[in-house]
Amino acid sequence: MSGRFISLEGGEGAGKSTQARLLVEALAARGIEAIITREPGGSEGAEAIRELLMQGEVTRWSAHSEALLFAAARADHVEKRINPAIGAGIWVICDRFLDSSRAYQGVAGGIDDAAILALHGFGSRGLLPDRTFVLEVSIAQGRARAEVRDGAAADRFAARGDAFHADVAAAFRRFAEAEPERFRVIDAGGDVASVHAAILAGLRDLLP
Amino acid sequence: MSGRFISLEGGEGAGKSTQARLLVEALAARGIEAIITREPGGSEGAEAIRELLMQGEVTRWSAHSEALLFAAARADHVEKRINPAIGAGIWVICDRFLDSSRAYQGVAGGIDDAAILALHGFGSRGLLPDRTFVLEVSIAQGRARAEVRDGAAADRFAARGDAFHADVAAAFRRFAEAEPERFRVIDAGGDVASVHAAILAGLRDLLP
Repeated sequence: MSGRFISLEGGEGAGKSTQARLLVEALAARGIEAIITREPGGSEGAEAIRELLMQGEVTRWSAHSEALLFAAARADHVEKRINPAIGAGIWVICDRFLDSSRAYQGVAGGIDDAAILALHGFGSRGLLPDRTFVLEVSIAQGRARAEVRDGAAADRFAARGDAFHADVAAAFRRFAEAEPERFRVIDAGGDVASVHAAILAGLRDLLP
Repeated sequence: MSGRFISLEGGEGAGKSTQARLLVEALAARGIEAIITREPGGSEGAEAIRELLMQGEVTRWSAHSEALLFAAARADHVEKRINPAIGAGIWVICDRFLDSSRAYQGVAGGIDDAAILALHGFGSRGLLPDRTFVLEVSIAQGRARAEVRDGAAADRFAARGDAFHADVAAAFRRFAEAEPERFRVIDAGGDVASVHAAILAGLRDLLP
């Protein structure tokens, strides 16, 4: 039986990587093997592209170049890591996936959602997660958590302003409303354990 | 007045970079400022992507990832270098451009020509050269010249076999037949001076 493909989305400091770890442990307790991966990156080639994307000035890449680089990294990640795991019956928990490109390049770059989906269709045969959790926190809370985690080393995305992050949050909410089967929106402002419980509840229909 | 955009295409060892230099000198003698650039690369971001593309095993990237990376590099090159030069009235002589992606990723990767053109439409607004010269040499001659130039340091493309290079040559010829206004096919097996003269003759209608 194929493994399930789960993505976690949301702004900076929403708790995605913490929740990914807790989810893998909870699945293991149920006898389900799972791996954690992340985007951009997650495979050797995609991590090399990630370096290009995350370094340098915010304006280093045009929106169109950036969208193509994200699609190239995702194609490598899907081919080399995600599809082989799923095919072997292993669940894949992915910290950011396609919907981050739709939210960030769509909002920041003004790239049409249809164009981002077309690039994904070309590079990754349009692979979609079985379930996508959008972890919602207030911008102030997300920023505070990201600063605790990263210190002064804010990357290119964390360096954007509040209006940008509000636009990203609104984009995730629109995607979730348009695809209620795939998405679950989770209030991630509470304590770690209750967010984890909400994620598990949102997976119940996919568990064996 | 806008500068003209000229690309030189052909297999390894066809003499593209030598002819690019001679062409810039001939244009300068006519009072026309011109720059030489190359693909993949030609701008700071695109050169960084070139490093990813040219290093490692032939199988490092899937055909789809590779096509996306080439499109990303080209988008950066067009935006940061080619379009600004043309806009300033400077001619641009480019050692490989879109048609190399069509020939190499099309032949080697089995990527549809329409898909490569769609990526170019997205990344670079579909910019086409005013004239494209296909420099044709026999595979044996091209290989001998490339070996003299590069020694043992054959890159990922030079490492392919003869059947591959024959397919690439046939692809360039098909493109030229389909777009006779843009393309000129040049027999590049002769001496450097006569190839240069043929290129200049093929530019006559574009010179002021």
